[in-house]
Amino acid sequence: MKFHHQTLSNGLQIVAECNPDALSAALGFFVRAGARDETPEISGVSHFLEHMAFKGTDKRTAEDVNREFDEIGAKYNAYTAVDQTVYHAAVLPEYLPRAMDLLAGLIRPTLRVDDFDVEKQVILEEIAMYADLPSWTAYECAMRRQFADHGIGNSVLGTVDSVGALTADAMRAYHTDRYGANNIFVAATGKIDWHQLVDLIEEHCADWSAGASERGCDRTHRRDSDEIICTDAYVQESIVLVSDAPAADAPLRMASELLASIIGDDSGSRFHWALEEPGRVDSVEFAYYAYEDVGAFLTSIGCQPDLAEENLDIIKAIFREVAERGVEPEEIDQAKHRLGARIVLAAERPQNRLQSLADHWTYRQRYASVEEDLALLEAVTIEQTKELLDRYSLSNHLAVWLGPLKGDATASAPSLS
Amino acid sequence: MKFHHQTLSNGLQIVAECNPDALSAALGFFVRAGARDETPEISGVSHFLEHMAFKGTDKRTAEDVNREFDEIGAKYNAYTAVDQTVYHAAVLPEYLPRAMDLLAGLIRPTLRVDDFDVEKQVILEEIAMYADLPSWTAYECAMRRQFADHGIGNSVLGTVDSVGALTADAMRAYHTDRYGANNIFVAATGKIDWHQLVDLIEEHCADWSAGASERGCDRTHRRDSDEIICTDAYVQESIVLVSDAPAADAPLRMASELLASIIGDDSGSRFHWALEEPGRVDSVEFAYYAYEDVGAFLTSIGCQPDLAEENLDIIKAIFREVAERGVEPEEIDQAKHRLGARIVLAAERPQNRLQSLADHWTYRQRYASVEEDLALLEAVTIEQTKELLDRYSLSNHLAVWLGPLKGDATASAPSLS
Repeated sequence: MKFHHQTLSNGLQIVAECNPDALSAALGFFVRAGARDETPEISGVSHFLEHMAFKGTDKRTAEDVNREFDEIGAKYNAYTAVDQTVYHAAVLPEYLPRAMDLLAGLIRPTLRVDDFDVEKQVILEEIAMYADLPSWTAYECAMRRQFADHGIGNSVLGTVDSVGALTADAMRAYHTDRYGANNIFVAATGKIDWHQLVDLIEEHCADWSAGASERGCDRTHRRDSDEIICTDAYVQESIVLVSDAPAADAPLRMASELLASIIGDDSGSRFHWALEEPGRVDSVEFAYYAYEDVGAFLTSIGCQPDLAEENLDIIKAIFREVAERGVEPEEIDQAKHRLGARIVLAAERPQNRLQSLADHWTYRQRYASVEEDLALLEAVTIEQTKELLDRYSLSNHLAVWLGPLKGDATASAPSLS
Repeated sequence: MKFHHQTLSNGLQIVAECNPDALSAALGFFVRAGARDETPEISGVSHFLEHMAFKGTDKRTAEDVNREFDEIGAKYNAYTAVDQTVYHAAVLPEYLPRAMDLLAGLIRPTLRVDDFDVEKQVILEEIAMYADLPSWTAYECAMRRQFADHGIGNSVLGTVDSVGALTADAMRAYHTDRYGANNIFVAATGKIDWHQLVDLIEEHCADWSAGASERGCDRTHRRDSDEIICTDAYVQESIVLVSDAPAADAPLRMASELLASIIGDDSGSRFHWALEEPGRVDSVEFAYYAYEDVGAFLTSIGCQPDLAEENLDIIKAIFREVAERGVEPEEIDQAKHRLGARIVLAAERPQNRLQSLADHWTYRQRYASVEEDLALLEAVTIEQTKELLDRYSLSNHLAVWLGPLKGDATASAPSLS
């Protein structure tokens, strides 16, 4: 494994982890553009633009894009997050040049007005579909209230109003601003010839201009009050709790990952034994979300309304217990085994290494090998988890309720209607 | 990569593909026991037994099993098919001994009566859940009618009656019969020390007795007539077509895989362009199923009832067209790229190689490297696809309809009620 890094004169960065023994190559364009960069008027434009990227260029129709990716057997996709938009593909090494040609085309799409109008309907349907998912609706509401004056609280999909009113010109302006060469890095992993990679990127991207691309980073944020959304649309109650957590560049990052696994992992965690195993919930999750300037611990449960208050008491008791007595050494060991195995098992595929390489580059502007990641994990101490729990109180959380329960947000919990 | 093979004196076989460069090890117990080995009275016992395997041994409770797999960060699971039951785990190489201990324990469970009674309810709920899935119900019905007098038509889940009436003693008798050492092989891939592997298996499995284990293989089968299940339970119509296909050991196997991709792949296939892309169906699939003695091509679609007959006409026209004019050379090339990329991308993880290694061993009693698989794929000719289509007519199919449409099976198609 060898790491390389270079910046073109237009500001576009290239990072690669070359593994001569790999059987495939993975390639991704990471654009520093997402919901957090949107004003309310253009809310959802990043995600809409990601869809439009597949509609083709001057030399390719949408059908050509699909067919050509298919011809080289590429496993390809794209996604839009609150802080970045990513286009990626995994291919056999001999198809790297064609994959690069296709991916670079996605980043510089034609944005035809006809396609724009048709795709808008697809996006509006997607918004309607997600609005039907209670866990998603509760999550979006919780993030919006936790990060009330911060871009991380923005919705990735946008609203029916904002997307409905969006024009192709507004999207073009956003593209010019945010898709500048200096706001993009290309990452590659697996069987990569570094010099060939740089030549290919020069060929396709050297004439891309830079953009405005400023992003206001803010390590503080205001939190709104709890919210109870009472609706008969769902039989089950969805509850989301959010509290502050370290940002992605914080020294306590790995301790946060470990704590999330101890409290909320699928198997063997505190939530698993207290809530999932006795069948008290349909679903329960405890996750650590980290961004460049802020972070959050998120608890999500779905359960029968008449068990909701009791379940919340169980969760609060677990939060109090880890705050007062800390976590057990055996829990730390077990979570280290679990996360260590995941890091290693994921590292076997270039397409997974791509994500890890890009995460380090996005949030910490550095490279870390699998061995370094494992060493970081191994180095977490019980004292660090204590420090983490002292500085980021899980009990100091926002709560959002969605479902049949009604009540006012000042009471300890809503009641069954 | 180095392949090894050995048979213990009790008949248990061991196969391994050792890759010193891999980061993990994958391990699986492949038991030649499945729905096809069941009489109607014990229908569902293989799948029920697979659940019971996780309930523990004399030295471990069910909770111990979960906790111990979790302690070593194992990614583990099990599944029951119509012709085999598989227990597998992927771990870091240093945990291979503990994973072996745990997996071997699954194959020799205690089968406590208390656990049996509790788990029976879980299975009955699973049967009810699957009965609510129209695509599953139509699939099971189609397989039952296609293989009317053949074990491949048996249901993996069994029925509420058969599972409800099952006794722990009947399960024990089935276990003694089918889980004999001579009916099992252990496969391992990734970072494996062959001698350590054999020693571990000797330690845990050498005292296992052989079982009865005979299985009647039959290369012929009787097909029942079409069936139309008219029900208001679903808004959409589900249709499954089944026709004969080569068995898993047939020379035309790879040509069958290729044909399935040309006709029905997710992207770029005939069905994709004719049915999916114009939005005529909710879902469409064309798959090749291969077993040791028989095979089947399966078409499944879900669509609005008023489009069902037209969609079926489109499908029949595609079947006629490939029968009369064959497939295009470009289609073959594209499908080869697609399948080749999948073979290579899958080969990067020991846990995926395990499946490929075991498939070759189960159905062809031989080892094939990734390179051999790719060479086999590359060697498929347009003449072979022609021979395949001549010998296995897609137009000579069974049809099962499930949904609002009613009619009699002798008419060309049901009509809207």
